[in-house]
Amino acid sequence: MNDMTQTPEMLISNMAKRARKAAVALARATDAQKAEALRSAARTLREREREIVAANARDMDNGAQNGLSPAMLDRLKLDSGRIAGIADAVEAVAGLADPVGAVIDEARRPNGMVLQRVRVPLGVIGIIYESRPNVTADAAALCLRSGNAVILRGGSEALESNRAIHAAMAEGVRAAGLPADAVQLVPITDRAAVGAMLKAAGLIDIIIPRGGKSLVARVQEEARVPVLAHLDGICHTFVHRTADAAMARQITLNAKMRRTGICGAMETLLIDKDFADPAPIISSLIDAGCEVRGDEGICALDTRVRPAADADWDTEYLDSVLSARIVSGLEEAMEHIDAHGSHHTDAIITEDAAAAEAFLNGVDSAIVMWNASSQFADGGEFGLGAEIGISTGRLHARGPVALEGLTTYKWIVRGTGQTRA
Amino acid sequence: MNDMTQTPEMLISNMAKRARKAAVALARATDAQKAEALRSAARTLREREREIVAANARDMDNGAQNGLSPAMLDRLKLDSGRIAGIADAVEAVAGLADPVGAVIDEARRPNGMVLQRVRVPLGVIGIIYESRPNVTADAAALCLRSGNAVILRGGSEALESNRAIHAAMAEGVRAAGLPADAVQLVPITDRAAVGAMLKAAGLIDIIIPRGGKSLVARVQEEARVPVLAHLDGICHTFVHRTADAAMARQITLNAKMRRTGICGAMETLLIDKDFADPAPIISSLIDAGCEVRGDEGICALDTRVRPAADADWDTEYLDSVLSARIVSGLEEAMEHIDAHGSHHTDAIITEDAAAAEAFLNGVDSAIVMWNASSQFADGGEFGLGAEIGISTGRLHARGPVALEGLTTYKWIVRGTGQTRA
Repeated sequence: MNDMTQTPEMLISNMAKRARKAAVALARATDAQKAEALRSAARTLREREREIVAANARDMDNGAQNGLSPAMLDRLKLDSGRIAGIADAVEAVAGLADPVGAVIDEARRPNGMVLQRVRVPLGVIGIIYESRPNVTADAAALCLRSGNAVILRGGSEALESNRAIHAAMAEGVRAAGLPADAVQLVPITDRAAVGAMLKAAGLIDIIIPRGGKSLVARVQEEARVPVLAHLDGICHTFVHRTADAAMARQITLNAKMRRTGICGAMETLLIDKDFADPAPIISSLIDAGCEVRGDEGICALDTRVRPAADADWDTEYLDSVLSARIVSGLEEAMEHIDAHGSHHTDAIITEDAAAAEAFLNGVDSAIVMWNASSQFADGGEFGLGAEIGISTGRLHARGPVALEGLTTYKWIVRGTGQTRA
Repeated sequence: MNDMTQTPEMLISNMAKRARKAAVALARATDAQKAEALRSAARTLREREREIVAANARDMDNGAQNGLSPAMLDRLKLDSGRIAGIADAVEAVAGLADPVGAVIDEARRPNGMVLQRVRVPLGVIGIIYESRPNVTADAAALCLRSGNAVILRGGSEALESNRAIHAAMAEGVRAAGLPADAVQLVPITDRAAVGAMLKAAGLIDIIIPRGGKSLVARVQEEARVPVLAHLDGICHTFVHRTADAAMARQITLNAKMRRTGICGAMETLLIDKDFADPAPIISSLIDAGCEVRGDEGICALDTRVRPAADADWDTEYLDSVLSARIVSGLEEAMEHIDAHGSHHTDAIITEDAAAAEAFLNGVDSAIVMWNASSQFADGGEFGLGAEIGISTGRLHARGPVALEGLTTYKWIVRGTGQTRA
């Protein structure tokens, strides 16, 4: 069939139906088969390095002509080292434990029936992403490892690179005896294809957007299919009055400045009015190149602090900028986080275990931390082996999502002829 | 504020904001406080029996004038016994284990950070239901027990009854020291209020419809808020060639005829062509008053069988009607279920353990059963103590949903000053 003659809705519907068929085969695949499919895909990626680099060169040429920024071109670029990295990552996913088939719980009823809840794949997963072509391999690997079929829709600027990586992945999967339709790439760059995926309720089980805020916002706004994502990471660190001064300085510096562009980076610092030594925290941040926008109390600590505007408390900078405020204590800190946070990751620094537990219980975020840097908000750092995203939604999976988050469960009932009275 | 001066959207938004505030208090409430609130609500329901019966009498009068069917009037009716039953049910929920605070898993990272996933309430739950006023108490009790605030929107024909039950529940909750806004009833019967609930994404965390297919279909069609529900229960029983003949007859009779109106009732029977003794199964069902619509092979078993039309394989009768078909074996049975089922509950009857396991693994339904009646598809029968509904969705909870399905989790990280390298 010629893709050009189909509407985007028909195209996505046909892809999803093929994916569903592949998902049935995948759901029955063994742990070893799925791991071998990924190892085979990694081998194929390595074997095809030259073709992938050539495809990427075409994207880079187009990108340069279309005026992509140097930062975007760098994200797009693939070379021998990056392709090796992509293949290594696929192989690492092959080495993760298979969540499918795990028994969540089991019970014997008084009538003798034995009930189990057993993990099974979600089914068909849609991934919508932007310029980084490595997502093609990473996301496909996580979906396959957990027994799911995947429909990938990458950015138009990376189409040639994505096609080459996808072809290698699909060939690897096929060579391992699993259906190549388990990994499909949307072959058109028409934006309507994204719309068709978002509306494919019943055909696609979940959509995971990977990219900037405008992409996530569009997906959340338009989707009729459930979405696993976070829009903002407005992460707070609260320095309690009993905090260890050196620890507070080190953690806040790390939470803000280690990498400013990740969703777990601290965006707002709250300092207890009774904390003895706030000035060095602010000065260290400014010395490290951070612009601090503060309330009156913070402005009084260092002449380099600029006054914060109202909008600062609701801003995810993803940059070397921080909003900072003095609060009257734990309760006001928690109220501020509730009013201005994005329920992603929030941390308290304190030597008072009772205050810590009140914060950990009282703050309604996907991740809450005591005496640690919010930059740890990451599936790899959490020991999940990988991460397909971080969810601030309350349904299904919350926080860092890896293989388990890509599964659901079924109830298995084994009886011996029981009928209901 | 006068409810009459608000648009339905403003009304729902204001209710949801009050609910969110109450949810914060509820999330911090102890197991004992929540249990006591429900016991207090049960006491208040009993104390107010006369007022509730009087309110119900007004609904019954209106219903009779508006031409409600005898069956609908019976569903609506409350008397002393039914109110005692409602209070007992609320008390029973008080006695269930609190899911909140349970540690799902725990890990220590190499850097010394200790991670826990801990159950927390979902937040604000919307219940949209029809004529049975007992749902007002039942659903509210399950939401409260799991630390959630609830917004109830019952059918207009039960408004007076629902108001009286709701007032007793809220008073009981308040008397136990928890916020009465934890249980709110939408005070208007305007259908636009349902629409406003369905679109209140971010304000209401999940909508659970309780009622007939047209209600569920509307909710699933219009909702921007995640929905936990099932639309159809097209449940199959497959009699494998090795099935014990007596067991097959007993289970199929029970699965179809014990109660025909529940979602776990068998709607389609599949019989292996090599099963030795199919005729008594069909005859028993017909003798018990069931109309059987069969394919050629089934028609040949009993002259009373009528030929099935294509639509029969996709029909949930919820009545003493059954579609029945001869299949070539396990694979064709699974293909039929995949093509025509609703992924609710499907069962195999067989003495062959390998065939059973192939069915249990291969059929993609919320509940799969071996040698048991599909009528067991129920949270109470599964030992969950209660049930707020059965979900055929793949996200979040699947199958019978009780307290655990009304929770999510948070990640709690306890460190000693860790920063990320």
